Amino acid sequence: MGEIFPSPVVIEGEDAPGRAVLVCEHADNSFPEIYGNPGIGDEGRRAHVAWDPGALGLARALAARLQSPLVRATLSRLIYDLNRPPGAESATPPRSEIYDIPFNHALAPPEKLRRVSQIYLPFHDALHGLLAQRMAAGQSPVLITVHSFTPIFEGRQRDTEFGIIHDQDDRLAKALARQDLGGLAVHLNQPYSAADGVAHTLALHATPYGLSHAMLEIRNDLIADEPAQAAMADRLAPAIIAAMKEAA
Amino acid sequence: MGEIFPSPVVIEGEDAPGRAVLVCEHADNSFPEIYGNPGIGDEGRRAHVAWDPGALGLARALAARLQSPLVRATLSRLIYDLNRPPGAESATPPRSEIYDIPFNHALAPPEKLRRVSQIYLPFHDALHGLLAQRMAAGQSPVLITVHSFTPIFEGRQRDTEFGIIHDQDDRLAKALARQDLGGLAVHLNQPYSAADGVAHTLALHATPYGLSHAMLEIRNDLIADEPAQAAMADRLAPAIIAAMKEAA
Repeated sequence: MGEIFPSPVVIEGEDAPGRAVLVCEHADNSFPEIYGNPGIGDEGRRAHVAWDPGALGLARALAARLQSPLVRATLSRLIYDLNRPPGAESATPPRSEIYDIPFNHALAPPEKLRRVSQIYLPFHDALHGLLAQRMAAGQSPVLITVHSFTPIFEGRQRDTEFGIIHDQDDRLAKALARQDLGGLAVHLNQPYSAADGVAHTLALHATPYGLSHAMLEIRNDLIADEPAQAAMADRLAPAIIAAMKEAA
Repeated sequence: MGEIFPSPVVIEGEDAPGRAVLVCEHADNSFPEIYGNPGIGDEGRRAHVAWDPGALGLARALAARLQSPLVRATLSRLIYDLNRPPGAESATPPRSEIYDIPFNHALAPPEKLRRVSQIYLPFHDALHGLLAQRMAAGQSPVLITVHSFTPIFEGRQRDTEFGIIHDQDDRLAKALARQDLGGLAVHLNQPYSAADGVAHTLALHATPYGLSHAMLEIRNDLIADEPAQAAMADRLAPAIIAAMKEAA
């Protein structure tokens, strides 16, 4: 059966009845030993470069309020970035933001292939299976991915607090941006957009099936701890429910 | 480990070096007993309604000439049509062309779910894995699906002999249509097109990765036996190679 490796994916609440299917590709900053030492130090392991701080807590709080399943990663995105295709250098970046990532330097092809086979494929096959089973049952799942971004990027303060990114179908994203979000600074396709190659999960799982979708990007200083994540989920969940009624 | 069921997919020539990856979703008219009797009689089992006659022979002849892998189905499309999404009624059609398909009447949800889990998902996960491994190795695979269509449809003679269908990226399809095909009656997006929902495999595997792609539709009276399939492959293979050089 080959080498034992840690599962890269956990589905929480698989049978939850809500229409939304939540995904958190950058949920975790774990580096299992079998993939080696990333060489970025403890500060790097805690930083945005390794994961999306706060995103998992927010995604879980949203899943509870939307009564929906959550598909989450268990490994750092520096081992394999699940929101990038296998051919992209950014799937296993040798540099990211201000960090050098030694264990991705001159990555040997068999090691790249191993990460694709052990991380990328099982994660996306699991998500594909969950969505396909819901479609087979006559449902139209709504795919919502949950991310966070840094307040300061390349030395510049970002004024977006909540970014909503879409792939080809913009209806849900626009409906969500129209909701009352209690004064949050909301911008469509900020701090980046599908044109930057950040909408891979949406392009792979929502667009081919015509499923409504959105990628939520929250500034990470707004979801730094569990009370903040719960408060943010209290603001976003009713808006998501209203937007799904309007546009999904 | 659950019930034993026949594998719905075989990959032939997995390590073949060519850029093309060939797919034959309607290769086979087998009805394994565990899915029950389709109730369409021997004539129905041999007809286009159950598979694409000649398509597998042509696909194999092309795979040999293009030195490329072939991903083929092992079951009739009446059990599950692999070129249709799980939510589509046409994935498990209760009627198709002139045939009534009794075993798909009022299909129970658990039976639909079983076919999705045992047929649709393993087939597409295997194709996804093959493509992802090639992309991880730095290649840009070209996805080519091979189909056949009936000379007479709903009483009308079709004059197309070779149809080339594309999803969002039309470059390879148009380049192929421009090649010398020795007088074949070639039409783009005939006898049907992506707008009819027939390009699911391309939409699922090629478009999200920006891979060049085409769905080849050959009128089945032109590929009725092995010599005819070999002769057609001799015409098409050089044209496909030239089109890949121009547009992929």
